[in-house]
Amino acid sequence: MDRLARQLQFILEIDKLKSIYRRTYLVDGERRENSAEHSWHLAMLAMVLAEHANQSLDVAKVMRMVLVHDIVEIDAGDTYIYADQGDKAEREQRAADRIFGLLPPDQEHEFRGLWEEFESAATPEARFAAALDRFIPQLHNYHTQGRSWKEHGITAERVLKRNEEMSAGSVILWEWTQTLIERAVAEGLLPRNES
Amino acid sequence: MDRLARQLQFILEIDKLKSIYRRTYLVDGERRENSAEHSWHLAMLAMVLAEHANQSLDVAKVMRMVLVHDIVEIDAGDTYIYADQGDKAEREQRAADRIFGLLPPDQEHEFRGLWEEFESAATPEARFAAALDRFIPQLHNYHTQGRSWKEHGITAERVLKRNEEMSAGSVILWEWTQTLIERAVAEGLLPRNES
Repeated sequence: MDRLARQLQFILEIDKLKSIYRRTYLVDGERRENSAEHSWHLAMLAMVLAEHANQSLDVAKVMRMVLVHDIVEIDAGDTYIYADQGDKAEREQRAADRIFGLLPPDQEHEFRGLWEEFESAATPEARFAAALDRFIPQLHNYHTQGRSWKEHGITAERVLKRNEEMSAGSVILWEWTQTLIERAVAEGLLPRNES
Repeated sequence: MDRLARQLQFILEIDKLKSIYRRTYLVDGERRENSAEHSWHLAMLAMVLAEHANQSLDVAKVMRMVLVHDIVEIDAGDTYIYADQGDKAEREQRAADRIFGLLPPDQEHEFRGLWEEFESAATPEARFAAALDRFIPQLHNYHTQGRSWKEHGITAERVLKRNEEMSAGSVILWEWTQTLIERAVAEGLLPRNES
C-alpha cells in the first residue's frame, strides 16, 4: 500500500497544473487557458492529427509525452515562448526532481524519461509532440482575433521564426501554419514586423 | 486538405469542453473543475494506476477512452452522478452524432467507438476507465473537506452505493475508497446516512 500511497500523492500534487495559466485564451475568448486543459487538448491533437507527422510514430507515446510535458510548470511556472527563457531549464530540472520524485522509483524514471525525451526533441515522437505544442496556440490566437499576440506586441516575423522548428515534426502542419499567419496579417490581426 | 480542415474543426469545437464545469472542486478548493482538465487528470491516473486494474489491459486504450469520454458534455452538459439521470442517454447520443460527426468518417467511427465502449462497460479497459472516473471525485471531495458532498447533501451510504461498480474495474481502488469514505465519516465530512 505504500506504493499506492505514493502514486496518490503524485495524483493529488499534479492537480495544481489546473491552476497554471498560459498566455493563450480559450477559443471563445472567455479566459486564459490552463496547462492541464491544454495538455488534454494536445493529447486529442495527437490522436486526431498523427497521420500528418513527418514519420510514422508511436501515437500512444506522443500522447503520454504531451500529457506529462507541462507538469514541471507546477513549480517552474509557464514560460512565455516569446519571452527571455532565463533560467527556465534549471527551474524545470528542480521541478522534475521534486514532482516526479513523489512517484515510486520505476514510475519516476518512466515519467521523467518522457519529459526529457520531449525536451530533447531527439525522437520522431518528441518532434511531433513539440510541433503540436507549437501549432495549437496559432489556432487559438487566430480564432481570438490575435488577442494574445496583440497583448504582447508579437509580429508575424517572430511567430514564424519562433515556430519554424514545427517543420521537424510535421511539414504539413507547418505549411498550414504559415498560411494561417499570412491570413492573420492580411486581416490585420498581426503586424508583419516591427516598423 | 479537406480532411485536415475537418480535423481542425473538431479540434476547435472540443475546446468548449474547457467551459463545462463539474460539481467537484479542485484539490485546493479554489474553484470547480472543468471536464477537459478532469479528462487530463484521468489519463494521468490511467498511466499511474494501471497496475491496480483487476485484469491486465491496454493502457493506451484506457487513456484514449478517458480523454474522449466527456466530449458529449459539450452539448449534453455534465450530469451529476447523484442526480436523476433523466434523458442523459438520448442527449448524449445526439451530442455524439454532432460532435464526432465533424471528423472524417474513419475517425468519427474510431472516436465514437471509444465513447460507446466506455459507456458499455463491456471490456476490461472500459471498466477500469469507469473505475478511475468514479475514484477521482472521492479524492477531490475528501481533500476539500467534503465540500461538494455537503453542498448536495450526499451521505456515505449513497457514495458507496453509487460507486460500488468501481470494483468491476479495480477491487484495490474500491477497497481504498471504502476506507477513505469511512475516514470521511469519522472526521465529520460526510454523514453516514439520512437520519
